[in-house]
Amino acid sequence: MVHTRNDCVARDNADPLARMREHFDVPDDMIYLDGNSLGALPHATKDRLRQTIEDQWGLDLIKSWNKHDWYTMPLRCGQKLSKFIGAKPTEVVCADSTSVNLFKLLATALAARSDRKVIVSERSNFPTDLYIAQGLIGMLDCGHELRLIDSDAEIETAIQNDVAVVMLTHVDYRSGRVHDMKAITKKAHDAGALILWDLAHSAGALPVELNAADADLAVGCGYKYLNGGPGAPAFLYVAERLQEHVRSPLSGWMGHASPFDFDASYTPAKGIARNLCGTPPLLSMAALEASLDVMADVNILQIRNKSLELGNLFINLVESRCAAHGFRLISPRDETRGSQVSFAHPDSFPIMQALIDGHVVGDFRSPDILRFGFTPLYTRYVDVWDAVDVLAGIMDSGSWNQQQFHERGTVT
Amino acid sequence: MVHTRNDCVARDNADPLARMREHFDVPDDMIYLDGNSLGALPHATKDRLRQTIEDQWGLDLIKSWNKHDWYTMPLRCGQKLSKFIGAKPTEVVCADSTSVNLFKLLATALAARSDRKVIVSERSNFPTDLYIAQGLIGMLDCGHELRLIDSDAEIETAIQNDVAVVMLTHVDYRSGRVHDMKAITKKAHDAGALILWDLAHSAGALPVELNAADADLAVGCGYKYLNGGPGAPAFLYVAERLQEHVRSPLSGWMGHASPFDFDASYTPAKGIARNLCGTPPLLSMAALEASLDVMADVNILQIRNKSLELGNLFINLVESRCAAHGFRLISPRDETRGSQVSFAHPDSFPIMQALIDGHVVGDFRSPDILRFGFTPLYTRYVDVWDAVDVLAGIMDSGSWNQQQFHERGTVT
Repeated sequence: MVHTRNDCVARDNADPLARMREHFDVPDDMIYLDGNSLGALPHATKDRLRQTIEDQWGLDLIKSWNKHDWYTMPLRCGQKLSKFIGAKPTEVVCADSTSVNLFKLLATALAARSDRKVIVSERSNFPTDLYIAQGLIGMLDCGHELRLIDSDAEIETAIQNDVAVVMLTHVDYRSGRVHDMKAITKKAHDAGALILWDLAHSAGALPVELNAADADLAVGCGYKYLNGGPGAPAFLYVAERLQEHVRSPLSGWMGHASPFDFDASYTPAKGIARNLCGTPPLLSMAALEASLDVMADVNILQIRNKSLELGNLFINLVESRCAAHGFRLISPRDETRGSQVSFAHPDSFPIMQALIDGHVVGDFRSPDILRFGFTPLYTRYVDVWDAVDVLAGIMDSGSWNQQQFHERGTVT
Repeated sequence: MVHTRNDCVARDNADPLARMREHFDVPDDMIYLDGNSLGALPHATKDRLRQTIEDQWGLDLIKSWNKHDWYTMPLRCGQKLSKFIGAKPTEVVCADSTSVNLFKLLATALAARSDRKVIVSERSNFPTDLYIAQGLIGMLDCGHELRLIDSDAEIETAIQNDVAVVMLTHVDYRSGRVHDMKAITKKAHDAGALILWDLAHSAGALPVELNAADADLAVGCGYKYLNGGPGAPAFLYVAERLQEHVRSPLSGWMGHASPFDFDASYTPAKGIARNLCGTPPLLSMAALEASLDVMADVNILQIRNKSLELGNLFINLVESRCAAHGFRLISPRDETRGSQVSFAHPDSFPIMQALIDGHVVGDFRSPDILRFGFTPLYTRYVDVWDAVDVLAGIMDSGSWNQQQFHERGTVT
């Protein structure tokens, strides 16, 4: 049990992941609990980008596509990423944004189940996932329906045999609750539907077992727990057994079987590469690859274990030290929690502003959620202690409230 | 007239754009005539990326989105780019790849002309444009047709009143021939069709007048004449009068009216921003912005004038010094030529390999084309002289032929 800050220091000293913090730029004057929104900068990324820009682009110019293996970067990043999501190296590729990749795979799923018209998702899903489904349905204009469920209990009844695809985010972006991937995938398959998982808040944060769950399709984000940098290219996964059946409607030249033959007709590449579209943003992708290289040897079970412990510690400390201040835990207490902890509070917005002013950076999510992400690679147990210390100070002194008036320009 | 290398030196000395070369990394040991494929590295980009990575991402992390105006970068880049394409600052935004942007606008054009089923394009268009049209047609699966024309003479007959949208690349990627934007746009409009211009080989290379031509839609590339770096984000243009009618099927959260309200329903943003989709690749986009800043004060008419003169010089020198070697000019000699010069030759592939080995970098395009791009910002008249000198040496000595055997491993 942790009773003092020194107990936290002791835990950090015993932490097998502690050495990983040395690989990241983490500002001295900030406790950063928002790696679930933008991961920290690995040191290696700086030199990697300098090389890519100055030595490759600058000196070798167009020759770099071959000489420095730029062409294979999307597949190579996919291979390096595959171990974090329980996929084969040939089942993952990095490209575009999560939203664009979702469009590709959702379109392909509807085409593969053309006798069915329903997409099942959650009303609480990350909005861009719902928007992409809405855009696709509007474009196809042939009677598709987005069936939104409000609770897990409804999943059973929502997945009927009119469902083409079930599209869910594995870890809820607000509550941090983890879906049972295996059970829901089986439910979808039993109804004859495909499953499409969004792994935005999973990849790099906890073990994901796409193959073991027999998952069909997945997408995810490079800039959260994978530390690929702001707006890093996203990834997509297609199970090997489905790859030759998938035809991305975004059939750009990088997904062609022979892009440099300049045929007038599109012939999709073999395997996962057919899901590429245009020329990838190489500088952003080089940053993602640099981070994947830094993370190459980390053990995802060690990450998961520390993530849960950091979260448990945070929950215990907030509930003990801020007991009188009306925080309501909305994340699970058990292992169905991802790598974040969220509390609801009626004044969550000004409280988060005060925390940020106090150099503790989490984020606010509408309508009333304070969200704190724990990235075991660079977050220490003492950071959790210190963050709660700042929060307790803000709440005990009421300074968040002055902050609120100050922000509104109505100091009284 | 240019008769000697010294004549070229004199022209460089008199060149009002000569000073711009100082803003770019151009390798000393290379004559780079492939800026139409990947533009050179502006010096300023190096420091800009270092700042974006180390000072912004590294130190301010998630706060950078507001503190360093990351959110507005796509619109800001669009504003800075608009002057190169004759558009209003509010008509352009940077996002995704050219292929993805083409998909968005082509889909929207078909939706806007839903009683028509034909897309007109050229068989010689850059393949990804045709592939995207094919992917879209396959996905919609409601009887659309891609009508490909083989010559300008056919445009008249191809644009009938069954045409929804005419999709053309302004400057042909092989021949470098420039379409008459105003005349073809009028032809499309007269037939009740929309026009969609691909400006990949135009933006930054020659004056483009989208507004003056009354063009509807356009896309283009950031990594060629705009020097935005490998795989730089692309841009798209929607005429002001059409913006509220456009609904991108790729309706991601960055195009939402209020992305941080996290509504479950998509409401498109006002204006050009509705064409954004997912989170942009910030590092790649920062490089594009750095280059646009370097180019902020250049006069596109000066660029155009020098570009034509460099090309004319190259044609004259190749035709005089390599007269016996069977090169056939396939680019126009007059002002309907863009910023590249292409020659056909039966042995173009090994000749280009020999040129590259001789540090003159152009590129090969199937089936038999040697392509040379002239970027007036960093290409000198002496570079043209020296490039032809190398080419003449290769042809006169027949060394490209030995090169060919060497490449095949059958040196005799």
